[in-house]
Amino acid sequence: MSESSGMTRRALLVGVGAAGGAGAMFAAMGALGLAPESQERAFVPPRPSDFSLSGRAAAKVLVLGAGIAGLTCAYELGKAGYDCTVLEAADRVGGRSLTLRGGDRLTETGGETQTAAFQEGTYFNAGPGRIAPWMVAMDYCRELGVPIETFVNSNASAYVYTRGMTAPVRARTARADLYGYVAELLAKAAGTGALDRRLTKEDGERLAEFLRRFGDLGPDLAYRGSTRRGFETFPGAGDGVPLAAPSSLSDVLAAGTGRAITMDFGYDQATPMFQPVGGMDAIVTALVREVGRDRIRTGTRVTGLRSLADGVEVTHPGGTLRADYCVATLPPHLLARLPHNLGTPVTAALRAPVPVAAGKIGLEYGRRWWEIDDRIYGGITETDLDITHIWYPSHGYHSGSGLIVGYYNTEENAELYGGLSPRDRRARALTQGRKIHGEKYRAELRSSLSIAWQRQPHLEGGWVHWPSYDGGFALLQRPAGRVYFAGDWLTHLVAWQAGAMESARKAVTGLHSRVLKTPS
Amino acid sequence: MSESSGMTRRALLVGVGAAGGAGAMFAAMGALGLAPESQERAFVPPRPSDFSLSGRAAAKVLVLGAGIAGLTCAYELGKAGYDCTVLEAADRVGGRSLTLRGGDRLTETGGETQTAAFQEGTYFNAGPGRIAPWMVAMDYCRELGVPIETFVNSNASAYVYTRGMTAPVRARTARADLYGYVAELLAKAAGTGALDRRLTKEDGERLAEFLRRFGDLGPDLAYRGSTRRGFETFPGAGDGVPLAAPSSLSDVLAAGTGRAITMDFGYDQATPMFQPVGGMDAIVTALVREVGRDRIRTGTRVTGLRSLADGVEVTHPGGTLRADYCVATLPPHLLARLPHNLGTPVTAALRAPVPVAAGKIGLEYGRRWWEIDDRIYGGITETDLDITHIWYPSHGYHSGSGLIVGYYNTEENAELYGGLSPRDRRARALTQGRKIHGEKYRAELRSSLSIAWQRQPHLEGGWVHWPSYDGGFALLQRPAGRVYFAGDWLTHLVAWQAGAMESARKAVTGLHSRVLKTPS
Repeated sequence: MSESSGMTRRALLVGVGAAGGAGAMFAAMGALGLAPESQERAFVPPRPSDFSLSGRAAAKVLVLGAGIAGLTCAYELGKAGYDCTVLEAADRVGGRSLTLRGGDRLTETGGETQTAAFQEGTYFNAGPGRIAPWMVAMDYCRELGVPIETFVNSNASAYVYTRGMTAPVRARTARADLYGYVAELLAKAAGTGALDRRLTKEDGERLAEFLRRFGDLGPDLAYRGSTRRGFETFPGAGDGVPLAAPSSLSDVLAAGTGRAITMDFGYDQATPMFQPVGGMDAIVTALVREVGRDRIRTGTRVTGLRSLADGVEVTHPGGTLRADYCVATLPPHLLARLPHNLGTPVTAALRAPVPVAAGKIGLEYGRRWWEIDDRIYGGITETDLDITHIWYPSHGYHSGSGLIVGYYNTEENAELYGGLSPRDRRARALTQGRKIHGEKYRAELRSSLSIAWQRQPHLEGGWVHWPSYDGGFALLQRPAGRVYFAGDWLTHLVAWQAGAMESARKAVTGLHSRVLKTPS
Repeated sequence: MSESSGMTRRALLVGVGAAGGAGAMFAAMGALGLAPESQERAFVPPRPSDFSLSGRAAAKVLVLGAGIAGLTCAYELGKAGYDCTVLEAADRVGGRSLTLRGGDRLTETGGETQTAAFQEGTYFNAGPGRIAPWMVAMDYCRELGVPIETFVNSNASAYVYTRGMTAPVRARTARADLYGYVAELLAKAAGTGALDRRLTKEDGERLAEFLRRFGDLGPDLAYRGSTRRGFETFPGAGDGVPLAAPSSLSDVLAAGTGRAITMDFGYDQATPMFQPVGGMDAIVTALVREVGRDRIRTGTRVTGLRSLADGVEVTHPGGTLRADYCVATLPPHLLARLPHNLGTPVTAALRAPVPVAAGKIGLEYGRRWWEIDDRIYGGITETDLDITHIWYPSHGYHSGSGLIVGYYNTEENAELYGGLSPRDRRARALTQGRKIHGEKYRAELRSSLSIAWQRQPHLEGGWVHWPSYDGGFALLQRPAGRVYFAGDWLTHLVAWQAGAMESARKAVTGLHSRVLKTPS
């Protein structure tokens, strides 16, 4: 690519950034370095004006890995005028942000190759599948023009199934019963005076009013069931037939549904969540478009990395590349194995995080029975089976077919499924799901595809777990010579794309700040 | 319209019904009358085969009102071969299922005419705005091919604002605090032995485990705040800065946020909910298409209704219409004023339900500040101000503009706003919303439009309230001579489109069953 066409592309990108809402916002926030600490809202990405101001030529940067972290680095550096090249070992871009469609092939280390037989319009987010509204991933969707839609993360009509149950219960039912009994118990305890030291008379009255509402208690503050549990027959001309009375307090506690109904309580999974329209890889596609496909070399496995006095040197089977700086975004357990000259403490730090196994199976059906039969539109059924979750799609409602995620599990359960052939994974997933949805779960299956992330080449894990954030975590936040590190693994948002993006912003901010300070 | 073209249209409709999912399902469920009681899933709409079987000619039916109830009656009867005519007093169809777009005009009784200045692509669901997954309205969306999308009814990032507050709190914060303190109080009460008569040792352990999770309690079962409350700075490379510690138990109870955070506990508003893509009136449009626009006479206000031995007679300013049967779907308070020969008990029954005032204002902005500044994507801010709710749109995320519902109130609050001019309603709504969202709420407004349903001609109310379901309610479920009644007001799903649809199905089932039994 000639320099002039590079400039043209760059000028175009700057224009795109300026036209976007986020770009406009960022531009208004002042020069880089004025608001460097707050990662959330105050981040100012490198701007071309910084460069023209100091009259510097663009530095060359090698980015290792074309996952979300690497692409975000290349995107932000590209906006600031850097000359980036992204090296990716796999034949495809995106890393774990992988959306599979009909015809796509998936090969695992030591495993067979699966080919997706999904019909046109069906997709399977094999990696990340949801975005929380506060996450920087939402900002990138806006800035990059990636349309988003609501992802249903919590559904009162979805099921909860624990091993002791003869039949699954709806989340709404499990919730109504637990809340009802909790409210009753507390109201009664308060009534006996057991809490008089904690509550003034006015507090007590307000608490009772809240508990009545919270548990749908009777006037005597007892819980005897509630229409919140659901109906045998919904109201219409008649006033409906509610489900039979709840089990005893003891049975409700023994059913063990508490984990399931508090699943969306954490800040990272609170309702609502979001997804790009048409598949999570829309973010990858948009980043690649902005970075320029010609700047990304897929099928290029890095075999060595050296930081030198005046640059970096990266080797791959086809040769050696040099640049001013490097941002390494590979998983830490793979970086640790890469021959490098960054020092023993860096290697030790890269070895600290432990890869976590994670797996998913996509099950495609020719009929959306979960909507038609079960009235479940999106959301997640929670189980204590080895499948852990069943995800129903939050898009394509009422269409002719659809794909559910038949398991999304981690650690031991993911190891278990990952050790099976795709056929045996499917058989096991169907056996488990059948306990919840009955025979149609098996009988109506059209096609399936499963992934074991720990068996994906160049990734070897779903994400990582830091046994401790002491020491190594902080070390890797800083560059090793001219090599910077980035990835969700280097944040407190592990396993989220937002982590990869936040980390990328931090790395390129540090790099750019250094470049600006370096005398030319 | 000639009989032959009528037959062609009818045959076409039958084909459409058969191709649809619901049609196929219904067809498989057997003949009419085999499953008449269960309104929810077992309903079998009249089928053309019933008619060909008995060899009867189609009866003529006059349907009064082209709202959801009337259109559903005409649709279902049309599928069964009936010759329906729908009389509608207003110049438009849809009744309260009203979606307003740029250029639409809205006139109130005794009020001025507003013209919507919304830009292309903006719509305002001035009537119903959401559908629950179990509702028959979802079946109609499927059967009619109306695309649906998720409606965010509950949003942890939305605000709660009560009059005592100096600043609004996020729903997630209010919830975390109430749940935290409730969990702590109950755990401590259980720890003192106050509940030993209710709980076995095992129950107690399970309860403690649940409460720890439910309230995010510390190891000592105390609540001292939680990341669930939210962050000053979200985690990234750093581990984030959570919001400051919660207020005292007493202050949290005094804040009065309990109503807001239990808003989605009821079966009718549980997460998730849904909306037709592009506006709620997509259902109306689809029903009109299936019924045939030529069968609907708008601008035709009924002035008299008589049930005769061999038919019905309906008068309107332009003349008199005769048919075999009538289904009257006007609001009961309007039907009660209509001259008729249906008897005094019918009039008394129609007078029983009390109209309820309801109002909404659509506020259009040229910038989606609720997303960009507040990170609120869809959902509802709950207040105890006279605006009651603020709805944020669940569609068009990240687009250049959008419309929020600045109030959705009922009864006294709706009377208050309804009594003001549109300009004064807007000023009042902005003053209130500004308490939550600050000056931009007023400064950035582009256009607005408000509706007071009690001042809408031919409706005169948002919905009705039955002081008692005894007597009149049951009487009107039955026909008065050859006149049947239908409407959401005649169900236990008042104010829901699903109520209108369920009631329509019940009415036409009764009518059709009678026609089949009548010797020709």
